[in-house]
Amino acid sequence: MAENTKRYVGIDLGGTNLKLGLVSADGQLIARHSCPTEAWHGPQHVLSRMAGGVRDLCQTAGVVLADVAAIGAAVPGPLDTKAGLVVFAPNLPGWRMIHVRDVLQKDLGRPVVVENDANAAGYGEFRCGAARQVRDMFLLTLGTGIGGGIILDGRMVRGTTDTGAELGHTMICYGGRQCGCGNQGCLEAYASATAVVARTEERIAAGEKSSLAGRDKITCKAVFDAAAQSDPLAVRIIEETADYLAAGITSLLHVLNPEMVVLTGGMMGAGDAFLERIRRQVREKAIGRAMEKCEIRWSSLEGDAGILGAALAAEAFDRTGQPA
Amino acid sequence: MAENTKRYVGIDLGGTNLKLGLVSADGQLIARHSCPTEAWHGPQHVLSRMAGGVRDLCQTAGVVLADVAAIGAAVPGPLDTKAGLVVFAPNLPGWRMIHVRDVLQKDLGRPVVVENDANAAGYGEFRCGAARQVRDMFLLTLGTGIGGGIILDGRMVRGTTDTGAELGHTMICYGGRQCGCGNQGCLEAYASATAVVARTEERIAAGEKSSLAGRDKITCKAVFDAAAQSDPLAVRIIEETADYLAAGITSLLHVLNPEMVVLTGGMMGAGDAFLERIRRQVREKAIGRAMEKCEIRWSSLEGDAGILGAALAAEAFDRTGQPA
Repeated sequence: MAENTKRYVGIDLGGTNLKLGLVSADGQLIARHSCPTEAWHGPQHVLSRMAGGVRDLCQTAGVVLADVAAIGAAVPGPLDTKAGLVVFAPNLPGWRMIHVRDVLQKDLGRPVVVENDANAAGYGEFRCGAARQVRDMFLLTLGTGIGGGIILDGRMVRGTTDTGAELGHTMICYGGRQCGCGNQGCLEAYASATAVVARTEERIAAGEKSSLAGRDKITCKAVFDAAAQSDPLAVRIIEETADYLAAGITSLLHVLNPEMVVLTGGMMGAGDAFLERIRRQVREKAIGRAMEKCEIRWSSLEGDAGILGAALAAEAFDRTGQPA
Repeated sequence: MAENTKRYVGIDLGGTNLKLGLVSADGQLIARHSCPTEAWHGPQHVLSRMAGGVRDLCQTAGVVLADVAAIGAAVPGPLDTKAGLVVFAPNLPGWRMIHVRDVLQKDLGRPVVVENDANAAGYGEFRCGAARQVRDMFLLTLGTGIGGGIILDGRMVRGTTDTGAELGHTMICYGGRQCGCGNQGCLEAYASATAVVARTEERIAAGEKSSLAGRDKITCKAVFDAAAQSDPLAVRIIEETADYLAAGITSLLHVLNPEMVVLTGGMMGAGDAFLERIRRQVREKAIGRAMEKCEIRWSSLEGDAGILGAALAAEAFDRTGQPA
């Protein structure tokens, strides 16, 4: 079989940075490029930076744009992937009904697909990361919020209106903590980095002793660091966070029964004992058969999952004419 | 195009009754047969009653067994659908590792597929019931327990070890009510018929006034009837049950984002105001886009969903050589 020499570009659009990668059909990251998003200048500026970034990446890699078979953009949602547009992006000023696909296709003259950033990260882990041996998996991105990506039988689950796999908004506690989405009790309201900080601050305000008390601003990393120093409140907060995540993951195992769960994002900083506690709790709580053939792992692509997933979603579209 | 005259048999194996139907490729129920399961005689007896039921059904319908293209059996789980066996069935004495497919195939000489009963009911609603216009849906069976069935892009979601779509065991309340599965806070522990009775009894024991107080044995139907008579406790219990279901459905919309949710089972007795309350609560709680194109409906096949879903899963297997 002749080697597949086709090249794809993945773009990961973040609120702070634009990251781009030139990717082979089998998921090798051949070259990369990044630049500040400069989101404050509004969507037209960001879109022209995205197109400029693709050109810069090609130049760096010594590839002509015409040799890029297709481009994938991982963007924050809600989206309409069929129309290739961002409906609304809370972290990008002015982003309402922005036709990312059409604008980039016109500017660059190459086919473009647009995917939700967490879905793209999940697809990246499935194609060339921690989950590359499996057909059914889901990913949780544990950062400021909690995002999700689901792959079933090798295909991304987007849902009817691209709001599938919003796994941060699965419920773990009826009538519980207020979530940014307007609902109460979402997993994100308990186990995101933001929630870790909020829960810590509440407990300090309620008078619990901690080396973190009296600090001007507590960060999630500061809570991890304090836990590593055996600060009792920080240790408890991290353990409870693992238990909340285990509850959410158990619930999702009973919906999707995947072969693998991949965890990624800033919460990886909580370390391997955190992951081990999640595994132990899920094994205890889940229906036996749901956990029997399921592994829970950290991401292996980490920050590159979005670039790779977006590029490989473009590859799948180029190869099959269908969304990944 | 020539009319498809192929015929299929669906078997719905319940703890009390065996229900069978002769079904056309487009989901018409041509003839039906039922008999007591006599589960107390053990698995061999039940399996021979299943085979006998198929022969009786064919005789009634004036069809020879050789003209049945394939047979589907909807059975309680956990299952191994690839091996066609029941791993364990709590309501059927002695059912552990029972090779339903192989035994029936040998006895009847026709191809047999085995499906989880709630999955089959979901597939029935998808192929010829309330959800026949959609590609993505899930079903909740609201009875003694809560079962689930998921169809995505026209295919049943079974999961890696056939424990997908166990939607009764999605969590709604961390650390909440004890569930029969061993975990706490499952939807089933709040919103099954069993949970409705338990919650009512607890509130009466705690001194709440109700026309149901002092009864020997409260049933779910008695709670519905009391609510219809404006018994204040019963009304509150039914409203809260709708709210718990709405919470669970909202959570699942954020995972699957389907076009339709179908509700079935004994809780249909709670009436249309109950369904309307669920719809209203979901509209309030869900991310807007997740609800935008999603309908929540009662089953249209009710008690026939299992027979029809099992027969049509057999039809799909006969047509494609792949599981439905």
